[in-house]
Amino acid sequence: MTDKPETPFLDQVNFPEDLRKFSAKEMHQIADELRQEVISAVSVTGGHLGAGLGVVELTTAIHYVFNTPTDKLIFDVGHQCYPHKILTGRRDRIRTLRQGGGLSGFTKRSESEYDPFGAAHSSTSISAALGFAVANKMSGAQGKAIAVIGDGAMSAGMAYEAMNNAEAAGNRLVVILNDNDMSIAPPVGGLSGYLARLVSSSEYVGLRKFASKITAKLSRRVHDAAERAEEYARGMAMGGTLFEELGFYYVGPIDGHNLDQLIPVLENVRDNAEGPVLIHVVTQKGKGYAPAEAAADKYHGVAKFDVISGKQDKGPGGGPPAYQNVFGETLAKLAENDPKICAITAAMPSGTGVDKFAAAHPDRAFDVGIAEQHGVTFAAGLAAQGMRPFCAIYSTFLQRAYDQVVHDVAIQNLPVRFAIDRAGLVGADGSTHAGSFDLTYLATLPNMVVMSPSDEAELAHMTYTAALYDDGPIAFRYPRGNGVGVDMPLKFEQIEIGRGRIVKQGAKVAILSLGTRLSEAMKAADVLEAKGLSTTVVDMRFVKPLDEDLIRKLMTSHEVVVTLEEGAIGGLGAHVLTMASDLGLTDPDSAHGGLKIRTMRLPDIFQEHDNPQKQYDEAGLNAPQIVDMVLKALRHNSAGVEEAGVRA
Amino acid sequence: MTDKPETPFLDQVNFPEDLRKFSAKEMHQIADELRQEVISAVSVTGGHLGAGLGVVELTTAIHYVFNTPTDKLIFDVGHQCYPHKILTGRRDRIRTLRQGGGLSGFTKRSESEYDPFGAAHSSTSISAALGFAVANKMSGAQGKAIAVIGDGAMSAGMAYEAMNNAEAAGNRLVVILNDNDMSIAPPVGGLSGYLARLVSSSEYVGLRKFASKITAKLSRRVHDAAERAEEYARGMAMGGTLFEELGFYYVGPIDGHNLDQLIPVLENVRDNAEGPVLIHVVTQKGKGYAPAEAAADKYHGVAKFDVISGKQDKGPGGGPPAYQNVFGETLAKLAENDPKICAITAAMPSGTGVDKFAAAHPDRAFDVGIAEQHGVTFAAGLAAQGMRPFCAIYSTFLQRAYDQVVHDVAIQNLPVRFAIDRAGLVGADGSTHAGSFDLTYLATLPNMVVMSPSDEAELAHMTYTAALYDDGPIAFRYPRGNGVGVDMPLKFEQIEIGRGRIVKQGAKVAILSLGTRLSEAMKAADVLEAKGLSTTVVDMRFVKPLDEDLIRKLMTSHEVVVTLEEGAIGGLGAHVLTMASDLGLTDPDSAHGGLKIRTMRLPDIFQEHDNPQKQYDEAGLNAPQIVDMVLKALRHNSAGVEEAGVRA
Repeated sequence: MTDKPETPFLDQVNFPEDLRKFSAKEMHQIADELRQEVISAVSVTGGHLGAGLGVVELTTAIHYVFNTPTDKLIFDVGHQCYPHKILTGRRDRIRTLRQGGGLSGFTKRSESEYDPFGAAHSSTSISAALGFAVANKMSGAQGKAIAVIGDGAMSAGMAYEAMNNAEAAGNRLVVILNDNDMSIAPPVGGLSGYLARLVSSSEYVGLRKFASKITAKLSRRVHDAAERAEEYARGMAMGGTLFEELGFYYVGPIDGHNLDQLIPVLENVRDNAEGPVLIHVVTQKGKGYAPAEAAADKYHGVAKFDVISGKQDKGPGGGPPAYQNVFGETLAKLAENDPKICAITAAMPSGTGVDKFAAAHPDRAFDVGIAEQHGVTFAAGLAAQGMRPFCAIYSTFLQRAYDQVVHDVAIQNLPVRFAIDRAGLVGADGSTHAGSFDLTYLATLPNMVVMSPSDEAELAHMTYTAALYDDGPIAFRYPRGNGVGVDMPLKFEQIEIGRGRIVKQGAKVAILSLGTRLSEAMKAADVLEAKGLSTTVVDMRFVKPLDEDLIRKLMTSHEVVVTLEEGAIGGLGAHVLTMASDLGLTDPDSAHGGLKIRTMRLPDIFQEHDNPQKQYDEAGLNAPQIVDMVLKALRHNSAGVEEAGVRA
Repeated sequence: MTDKPETPFLDQVNFPEDLRKFSAKEMHQIADELRQEVISAVSVTGGHLGAGLGVVELTTAIHYVFNTPTDKLIFDVGHQCYPHKILTGRRDRIRTLRQGGGLSGFTKRSESEYDPFGAAHSSTSISAALGFAVANKMSGAQGKAIAVIGDGAMSAGMAYEAMNNAEAAGNRLVVILNDNDMSIAPPVGGLSGYLARLVSSSEYVGLRKFASKITAKLSRRVHDAAERAEEYARGMAMGGTLFEELGFYYVGPIDGHNLDQLIPVLENVRDNAEGPVLIHVVTQKGKGYAPAEAAADKYHGVAKFDVISGKQDKGPGGGPPAYQNVFGETLAKLAENDPKICAITAAMPSGTGVDKFAAAHPDRAFDVGIAEQHGVTFAAGLAAQGMRPFCAIYSTFLQRAYDQVVHDVAIQNLPVRFAIDRAGLVGADGSTHAGSFDLTYLATLPNMVVMSPSDEAELAHMTYTAALYDDGPIAFRYPRGNGVGVDMPLKFEQIEIGRGRIVKQGAKVAILSLGTRLSEAMKAADVLEAKGLSTTVVDMRFVKPLDEDLIRKLMTSHEVVVTLEEGAIGGLGAHVLTMASDLGLTDPDSAHGGLKIRTMRLPDIFQEHDNPQKQYDEAGLNAPQIVDMVLKALRHNSAGVEEAGVRA
């Protein structure tokens, strides 16, 4: 904990309109104070620091020059929005960032009219800004739309699709390319090289002639061949032909930490643009805070830290390994004896554990950039040519490649392995990062095998099982965070496809658990046993194919069957109910009679960010709620000894 | 019907290796014969004609120059693959195209080793080709990968993502940009303008100096600034800087119908390329068949036709209107009194009926190109700024924008309207175009309303209902083809959200139908009534929110409840079962007792192309199968009069 910084100028700014009462010169002081405030706030909350520090001047300049909130400022991803929140009426809550009931770590419409469009996934800002701009154009309303998007986010196809449509917005669209040569990981691909060349070939500090050039540039479009020739030649100094070919006026590159340059350029664009403009701004992630500047990840996401030393409070070491690392290390080990194994990540090498694999097998690891669509079909091509590709993508981001999973992988029955991290609830990252739907959207697909491990040892076994499975696509999904602390196996086990395992045998109640809620199921079983209710607990391992034999056996021998999963409606519960109904197992005239089925799943809401335990409570997926569900089922519409069961 | 053309040269070609026995000069004759064969075949089968005619020379040249199938030829989308099929061992079945048991209208791995990667959705070819190329690079195997992709397909973000990663393939990747200035509809956006400028500014007929230029070009990369300056200047003649910035050697534009140019260029690229190459080939859709060349859509997709006149056999006119037109015309009418209504299509204006809307309201119709991701988030932006956007996208293509539906629309609860055509089975287009999963992947999302009309009048009412619904996202999904022939309403009705309607009241059996299978449900009810089984039929209208009151009432008063939907597991059936289980309605001790639930849905396979009736039979969603399901449920594990029920 540290004292709050002195911020005499910033203290006078609650909203951007306050900012506009100051002179352009005074923006320097305000930006400096804003940076100190961001560092101070994140030092107590933890969160995303580097990105925000990189756009302190840019954020200040945009709010100074543009008429927010009438002009719509849309941050891509939103990791960089903390300075923006401080300038837009949320400074008093900035130290509640990412905490239950506190500010979101991203922009959010429900939080402020200055957040016209929420974000968290990458590369949506230009499309959204186009929507605002075109709506204003149609209705004749005032207001431009300004998208601030990083160079990493530009590698996603969606950004390109939006740029390709930019002309529809006329001069109401301003795209600011925040080029810090870094998203979460260093950028990859041809575009990244292109931007680097633009920056290195330009004398972007030479402002004097720059301003007049911009004015000339904005005042007319290049149309004929002679002008185009000049444009190409000018490319050496001004660059940006790629963006110009897509329909933008390109301005830049300019120094994103130099307010004397930023403010006049933005004013110029605001007043003179005749069509959509792309301003290429060069910034430094972590700027102005020495420990961040010095760190490899530029303090992208940090724990609470000491402002003076930069030392992060990462809690006690040791403990169970993170799931992502169990996956990455297992895969690296398997690849030692299998030259066909390769791994694909979409700009998340460390988040997915692919960094561990890449360290051991650099030629077989592919970071495709923020490009899940390409990543999945690339993997399909690899599989079609005999490789054993593992696509390591977070559950929520795999949504970006759903059609590729269906069309390129499942229909063709190609053995692509999906290692799906961040499945289920994710705590402080909130609803935009929760992996709630993958069980549903994957298990509905023919040919697809869908697994979920109950602990880190099971994850290792499933990674091994997936490597050996060449018959079609196979997915395994596991949560954010650390394992439960079981011993890691000395030897990998190949799991039989479509077979669950009985963890505890009972007679009256059966809990069919998928994934890491198994520990809660076991706790619940203990409570139920104490109440005299003999309880079976099964680690289902698979949603698809379902272990029909096992389920049928349990359903014909137990009174209550409860499914338990960390996913929305349509997953394990739906598949089990459908199977039971197909087989008539709940029919009143079925041979055994007397079966009750209940499904426990994520609720039909987008859960807000909070600490994981509270999220599980809200979702109703903890042991007491399992006990409750069983007791209620047993006493449903009947009287008997179970009525005595009270909430554990 | 017409006689088959005389094809003395083509008759000697069963596989590409036969082609390679001829001289380059003789390719002219073979291409001419191939074109006649394609025209003749499609005249009897119907199908996609214009695209294939445009690539007759290109296909011939590729198979002549490259060593297929060791070299992998991957067609994007696949509409253009008929000439390819003729040259690769499938000529004897070419007149079975798109028919049950016959050849697929697209490339398909199970059909031939010359189809290394199946297609049907757009813009996947470069990613897949990269997969093949990189796999070969890793294993040291021989073989290049050649992707043939249209200019329209280049507007999709996925193609850009792949290009951005092209360098990973080294010189094993060849991308052929087939620029016919036309996908299904004319292309849109900045890229299209760029390609047009490249073509118009180049003297691409001047082959003499062209070949030497290519050689020089391929033999070294441009690295330093001086060379780059020369490159920019050369851009006027050679163009392609956009592709070069992304990491390709750009070659072109060249005339795609001139084999004297195509063959040496391809040979040059095959032998001399040092990195990934993009060859920009200009072709004419429908080339060489006068009626196709003259038609606005270049005979993109045709019915059977007369070869001499070009007249298509479109069957008798009149009859019920196509669903897409009911949607488009209804929306156009609603927009007369509502300036906020606007429509978005992703390169399918006529397929979605948005053309009808655009004709009446050109300023409020947006064709974003093959860019579903952008289209959905653009719509979200429009909605956030107060417009009432309708995203008209086929069910299968909406998979491309699933993350945008979740992250930009549903989480923010923005009132984007999804008009989802081609939901369910689609006949000759087969599994890649079937809309099997939308009920599942949409109904699992919080905030989402999901409807499906049972006929064309209901579609009009649902379009109206969606226009009036500003509380969040709402989707309505309807099938390919024509309505059932009901009278169209004089006045639109606003449907109460989450309310089904009882179409026929009975007492023992209840069929809960969603969508246009309602007519089969009614037929089944007639059969059941004739057997003395009093049957209720409900048009559910909604999967989400479910009409819980109605369902509970039916479940507590009927013996058998059957759900019926044209969708895979996870949709209506799963939601009804989950609700019943949540409420304990199938519990043995429930007050009413005696309930049996069955769900009828699409089977867990990707169904092959066939005529729709056969597909429904295979899926088990016709009236006799409904009757069967009910009778089996009634006699399940019990003896009684129902045992007498035999299959209708």
